Amino acid sequence: MVRGDDFDVIGFDADDTLWRSEDFFAEAEVMFSEVVGPYAPEGIDVLDSLHAIELDNVPISGYGVKAFALSMVQAAVTATGGTVPAQVIGDLVDYAHEMLMHPVELLDGVPEALAAVGRTHRLVLMTKGDLVHQTRKVRTSGLEHHFAHIQIMLEKDVENYRRILDEWSIDPRRFLMVGNSVRSDILPILELGGAGVHVPYHLTWGHEVVHEPGDGFAELESLRDLPTWLASPSV
Amino acid sequence: MVRGDDFDVIGFDADDTLWRSEDFFAEAEVMFSEVVGPYAPEGIDVLDSLHAIELDNVPISGYGVKAFALSMVQAAVTATGGTVPAQVIGDLVDYAHEMLMHPVELLDGVPEALAAVGRTHRLVLMTKGDLVHQTRKVRTSGLEHHFAHIQIMLEKDVENYRRILDEWSIDPRRFLMVGNSVRSDILPILELGGAGVHVPYHLTWGHEVVHEPGDGFAELESLRDLPTWLASPSV
Repeated sequence: MVRGDDFDVIGFDADDTLWRSEDFFAEAEVMFSEVVGPYAPEGIDVLDSLHAIELDNVPISGYGVKAFALSMVQAAVTATGGTVPAQVIGDLVDYAHEMLMHPVELLDGVPEALAAVGRTHRLVLMTKGDLVHQTRKVRTSGLEHHFAHIQIMLEKDVENYRRILDEWSIDPRRFLMVGNSVRSDILPILELGGAGVHVPYHLTWGHEVVHEPGDGFAELESLRDLPTWLASPSV
Repeated sequence: MVRGDDFDVIGFDADDTLWRSEDFFAEAEVMFSEVVGPYAPEGIDVLDSLHAIELDNVPISGYGVKAFALSMVQAAVTATGGTVPAQVIGDLVDYAHEMLMHPVELLDGVPEALAAVGRTHRLVLMTKGDLVHQTRKVRTSGLEHHFAHIQIMLEKDVENYRRILDEWSIDPRRFLMVGNSVRSDILPILELGGAGVHVPYHLTWGHEVVHEPGDGFAELESLRDLPTWLASPSV
């Protein structure tokens, strides 16, 4: 018996699992620092201000580019004591809109891996983030046809996973979730009796608690390795 | 036989059907005009600029308060030629965050109507808009327990309705949709073979095409009248 026989359905996270996401936020922070920094008084770290405002805003505006853009505007005004020119703020918003329209950049081996595992398993996509932006990315990625169901979730917690798997008539004990975040993609599914494969990404959001790979889930270097892992003997 | 016997499930729109929404955008526009207007050159209509930018941004950032906030920032910079003070822009974003946190204001008779029709029918909620904001409104409204399913949709078109009703195993021919928008809540459901009840709201979003009540769907003055309508003899 091979590992793949243990599962009927495989769920995939999207950002930093199927395509690049965190890189674009990191690039935006460099830009923010360059254009806003010169207007801040000496001794002010504009990125510290941005990070603190982002964290404060999560319960109000959630994750995603639009929430990030509003936090950039607030941080630009706050960290410069209101001295930043309006045009610079306009540029920040334009930059965010470009992020929303940026072409999807798939990670290494993703289309091949989905095609391979899609021959033996039903695939679903379960991703956090902004409804408009995630929908655009799914549609334009060329990957949409691989997935029987696509759900954009507000929070990836046990209760939400349970509700959605139930709606899709998926038995969690026959479900494998693949993603780059142990906290969001793996641990809730383990709690529901399912299995997880962690595919770490080189960047992790600053506010995400980093877990060590532990018992109960596997870790792969690349999504490219998933078909081979599924075809390996079950232990 | 009464009308209610024609349906197993009743779907509800949320914004301006269960609770006030468009009023808050109208109030925000008054505020925008007051704080940004004084920095615009003579002959510039700052609200015209805001409306045009909003419409341009719909495909990029969608509907909802966060998209509206980013459009306000862009319009403030554009319509004033960059002369608006940064602090005014900061105030626009603060105002938007207050909109996101504003307590839900239910429309007249809504809890009573849902309690009444919930005794004879399964209820579902199908709403457009921002994932974070709509989820907060549903959770804090005290109405969540009435609904067997809740879906926040990117677009209320035939294809999306069909997919979601199918996921919930709802036969569209036994489905009644109730909402304030003929275009979003009624026409797609009629096309799927279902029925619609239009409950107009006194404000309609400027970009929404207004339809006349026509054949194929009923119009009620208030959601309060829904139980009586369902209990009337079927024609």
